[in-house]
Amino acid sequence: MGQTITEKILDDHLVEGELEPGEEIGIEIDQVLMQDTTGTMVWLQFEALDLDDVQTELAAQYCDHQTYQFDFKNTDDHRFLRSAAGTYGAHFSRPGNGICHNVHKENFAAPGKTLLGSDSHTPTPGGLGQLAIGAGGLDIAVAMGGGAYYVEMPEIVNVRLEGELPEWATAKDIILEMLRRLSVKGGVGKVFEYTGPGAESLTVPERTTITNMGTELGATSSIFGTDEKTRDYLERQGRGDEYVELAPDEDAEYADELVIDLSELEPLIAQPSMPDNVVPVREAAGTSVDQVIIGSCTNGGYEDILPAAKMLEGREVDKKTEMIIAPGSKQASEILARQGWTAELMAAGVNFSEATCGACIGIGHVPASDSVSLRTFNRNFEGRSGIEDDNVYLCSPEVATAAAIKGEIVDPRDLADELGDLEAPGIELPDQYDGSKADLISPDEAVDDELIKGPNIGDVPLKEPLESHLAGPALLKMTDNITTDHIIPATSDILKFRSNVPKLSEFTLSRVDETFAQRALEADGGFLVAGENYGQGSSREHAALCPMYLGVEGVLAQSFARIHKANLFNFGLVPLTIDEDTYDRIEQGDDIEIVDDVGEGVRSGQEEFTVRVNDDWEATARLDASEREREILAAGGKLSWTKQQHEGSRGGAQPADD
Amino acid sequence: MGQTITEKILDDHLVEGELEPGEEIGIEIDQVLMQDTTGTMVWLQFEALDLDDVQTELAAQYCDHQTYQFDFKNTDDHRFLRSAAGTYGAHFSRPGNGICHNVHKENFAAPGKTLLGSDSHTPTPGGLGQLAIGAGGLDIAVAMGGGAYYVEMPEIVNVRLEGELPEWATAKDIILEMLRRLSVKGGVGKVFEYTGPGAESLTVPERTTITNMGTELGATSSIFGTDEKTRDYLERQGRGDEYVELAPDEDAEYADELVIDLSELEPLIAQPSMPDNVVPVREAAGTSVDQVIIGSCTNGGYEDILPAAKMLEGREVDKKTEMIIAPGSKQASEILARQGWTAELMAAGVNFSEATCGACIGIGHVPASDSVSLRTFNRNFEGRSGIEDDNVYLCSPEVATAAAIKGEIVDPRDLADELGDLEAPGIELPDQYDGSKADLISPDEAVDDELIKGPNIGDVPLKEPLESHLAGPALLKMTDNITTDHIIPATSDILKFRSNVPKLSEFTLSRVDETFAQRALEADGGFLVAGENYGQGSSREHAALCPMYLGVEGVLAQSFARIHKANLFNFGLVPLTIDEDTYDRIEQGDDIEIVDDVGEGVRSGQEEFTVRVNDDWEATARLDASEREREILAAGGKLSWTKQQHEGSRGGAQPADD
Repeated sequence: MGQTITEKILDDHLVEGELEPGEEIGIEIDQVLMQDTTGTMVWLQFEALDLDDVQTELAAQYCDHQTYQFDFKNTDDHRFLRSAAGTYGAHFSRPGNGICHNVHKENFAAPGKTLLGSDSHTPTPGGLGQLAIGAGGLDIAVAMGGGAYYVEMPEIVNVRLEGELPEWATAKDIILEMLRRLSVKGGVGKVFEYTGPGAESLTVPERTTITNMGTELGATSSIFGTDEKTRDYLERQGRGDEYVELAPDEDAEYADELVIDLSELEPLIAQPSMPDNVVPVREAAGTSVDQVIIGSCTNGGYEDILPAAKMLEGREVDKKTEMIIAPGSKQASEILARQGWTAELMAAGVNFSEATCGACIGIGHVPASDSVSLRTFNRNFEGRSGIEDDNVYLCSPEVATAAAIKGEIVDPRDLADELGDLEAPGIELPDQYDGSKADLISPDEAVDDELIKGPNIGDVPLKEPLESHLAGPALLKMTDNITTDHIIPATSDILKFRSNVPKLSEFTLSRVDETFAQRALEADGGFLVAGENYGQGSSREHAALCPMYLGVEGVLAQSFARIHKANLFNFGLVPLTIDEDTYDRIEQGDDIEIVDDVGEGVRSGQEEFTVRVNDDWEATARLDASEREREILAAGGKLSWTKQQHEGSRGGAQPADD
Repeated sequence: MGQTITEKILDDHLVEGELEPGEEIGIEIDQVLMQDTTGTMVWLQFEALDLDDVQTELAAQYCDHQTYQFDFKNTDDHRFLRSAAGTYGAHFSRPGNGICHNVHKENFAAPGKTLLGSDSHTPTPGGLGQLAIGAGGLDIAVAMGGGAYYVEMPEIVNVRLEGELPEWATAKDIILEMLRRLSVKGGVGKVFEYTGPGAESLTVPERTTITNMGTELGATSSIFGTDEKTRDYLERQGRGDEYVELAPDEDAEYADELVIDLSELEPLIAQPSMPDNVVPVREAAGTSVDQVIIGSCTNGGYEDILPAAKMLEGREVDKKTEMIIAPGSKQASEILARQGWTAELMAAGVNFSEATCGACIGIGHVPASDSVSLRTFNRNFEGRSGIEDDNVYLCSPEVATAAAIKGEIVDPRDLADELGDLEAPGIELPDQYDGSKADLISPDEAVDDELIKGPNIGDVPLKEPLESHLAGPALLKMTDNITTDHIIPATSDILKFRSNVPKLSEFTLSRVDETFAQRALEADGGFLVAGENYGQGSSREHAALCPMYLGVEGVLAQSFARIHKANLFNFGLVPLTIDEDTYDRIEQGDDIEIVDDVGEGVRSGQEEFTVRVNDDWEATARLDASEREREILAAGGKLSWTKQQHEGSRGGAQPADD
């Protein structure tokens, strides 16, 4: 049977499972990337694995979110990341060198390879045929340690692009059209493969705008095949030798197919406050605009800023509108500067920023209250810009620039009619992407051979293998629907300690009981007791890591949220399901003992365990877990499990360079 | 008798007093400038004056400190400032257009004129013969309202520069040498006039580096005469017609004279953590450097960045060192970009920032813990960089760049020897400063004709004329040495409300008594009681403004700190001196009544007032005040006094356009 592009790459990298949608598969990871806000924990976890070097073909650490270094903790993080990259053999991209996805695309993204990244927009290099997936920090650490990445086999959907984009319509309008049609949930459990003559008509930078923002569909990944456009892009990047041809077999079977006729597209805009709230720009025209920002991993490339520069040449930004350009990479900045476009943009009234994620994640250039901001970014969730009740629109650089010139939202076609001499800039690649690599420090050039930890960077705790005998107090009895926000609040005053588990753990469950963390530490063991749906909400790993640090051994709950339960396994906490009667009878402070040999029981597949309370009465608790989850739990969590595999005879998950 | 340059300009602008050192003089102000963190309060105070337009020849509002707009309050402030400039007829410089001192120098600074600015580095344009003085916000508001500025007549010191700078020594080394000799207190109450052949050898940008950093000597101002170099600079800025010749008379008498032989200077560096901790660079050589920043109002011009670019051409920043360039103005950025230098700097590994004060005031690029930062700024006070226990060195762009190349502190002469092909870049001006003015919105181009106040921008309270009868409770009894930090804490979580007096007032004296603000508001009148030296510390006007807002009528203290006492007059609070016995007898909560007619007594020059406590016992309190202070106090404070002068027959202080 013929294969899709995704299936071909997965097949090449499969180490466990079958390529059946919904089945869990394990795949070998060729490349990993990390950014600065997630990377610190990844490296602390990697440190705990006790390996000498990164085991993937390539690892790259970028500094892009906190480039303004507003707090010494940011600067300390960057220094730690540089030292970790140097110590373990990863590339290090300095703050100001650009956004991980852009710099990775320019330097490392390779057709046919797998990439795992600790950022949700990791799928960006799908635009040149790389299968790239975003994941949690622990998954990245394990992959860097040579372990496989486990994921549910996605459905592969064919997005057939017909025709060619008309003037003023852009790649951004293609992904906005996808969002308009499918909504932000339309891609869950799917990989979108873009095919057809319309796909072939797009350059790589246009393709990566689409694959990048596929994340907003909820997709596992998005990918294009490779062709002359891919080869051409790689050659202009000086990496023509990395070209590999990739196309679906003619008889490839897709789970679904969608057709978009590019020739029918027009400039679109996502209105506040969801990326799928998409309408034609003309429907929003006339809205006064206070701020325009061009940048981000979606539309921050040379090819995105050049159209703005051409449109603004000899013109000025409206006096009541602030326009900021934050390039996605220094490569883009440098080439634009060398060609004179940066000076033109400055002359027009643009505030030209260093290369950064910045405003896209609410760091800097927060909109004024009760104002309108047009951005070429990928997300406009309410409050993401840094102010509640914001009015953020998402659009192409062309639409953004038209608004900056006019001071209000306007379809650039109408602005062109009005001005008479405004031409559609179209897409144009530089002859050579000849930016300097001075800010990208290769493992050979590394300046550090040991970790440099500032005072806010702690060690990551590693758990011992599961013991035979588990006993301790019921440390906290909670109600139904406790969220990960209850367990570890996500407010910035607390999350800034994300690299400092001892400090962060002080806030564990503080929203339920302020005394909890102190009591748990003193008890040095014990259980959490909860009702239904414990751990709902985000995939935040700290919600399992911090209780583990405090010495919690297990959670007795009526039911668990799926992702949090997986995190409990990953951090070695035993998740036991109890019935309502048992829940009702257990009181906070009761002495709890698992009567069975827990270590042995978990390893052997035992599903029911006897819980004795206050040496007085007993109840039954269930452990629902796959074989792999039992292995991980028995080992003391995923880090310990991975470490064990390295120390013993290497099992299922093979290091990539073996 | 012959006059110094300063005396000539003061004489031209004198509206009150005599030019005798130590005497208070009133001078007419031609130009005012404000930056974004002080400007909001200035405009709120100006609004309270109820005038239609700015009364000075020129007013300019810059946005330079909070250009990153980390909080919507920053962005709201910028919008408010734009609206205020538009409404009242000031120039408005958008965020990203540059630092107030740089943009003012480029566009408005004019020989022979007076400039008052709400920033301590206002003396910068002294480098082209403008007499420029930094002052508090209320002084600026009053000056914009046409009132005179009152200042103690300074001593004029002649700094005679002989010889010429050798290779690798720069203007920065001249002012560092001044600091080495005189210390950070050496300029208090003085104006430094730079004369002699060495002064003539310096270009205007070099001169402004010196006059800018004269602030670190504690000087009232610093100034150069004008000559062909001044005319040349103005012509390159397209303002040759604003040239005026200015030189001291041959028989001018100076209070003191200092001679510096420029030919004997070598590269200097101010070590942590004081600008006068100056040594030759060679004494600090070998220290490993983590961060290098070129920028600020001292050394952020085209002429400061160009040497760095020349030194870095074909070279790279050391891999362990981060180098950031934050231009002082977009004019500098644009010209550097147009000439190709920006691309060269990026290629060398420089993180090229938007134009901002930024890191100089601890906003962004905070050093890592236990690290070394070399900066071309003017201040390295401990903690100013944003982290306690910082190690910040101050030096020239040449010394900073040499350190970036080598990764450690090195005298550039030694680095030149080592590299063989590193030439001293020298100073070079562009043929024309042909940057765009798109970001400088003139009053004619204004887009607003009413104030736009976000939710964090409150009104400023205006006090009624002093009443005849003052009575109320002793709201708070305090000990000796209460500082302005006790009265209004300067922590950033509190000072962000500086444009919101009602909100900020909630924190008044909270470090002494958390219930104070609420109690004062409820009492709606009453007195503060304190021991010796009340109000010591900073010149923070909010320390008088907030108690005034809360309804406090006066302060009974054993003694007052000088500047705070002036602020009490300025905000209409009666400062009465009591003896130790009286202080001891008064208890918090006592009913206090001034028996005399206070309004009449203040106006008529009465020095002793009778205080009756609890209708039980009496004591004498003294009012020590000049005639002008009595007028201000009687009017309800300086704002009310200025307003009164506009409404009645205009007295002593004449609007500049009268």
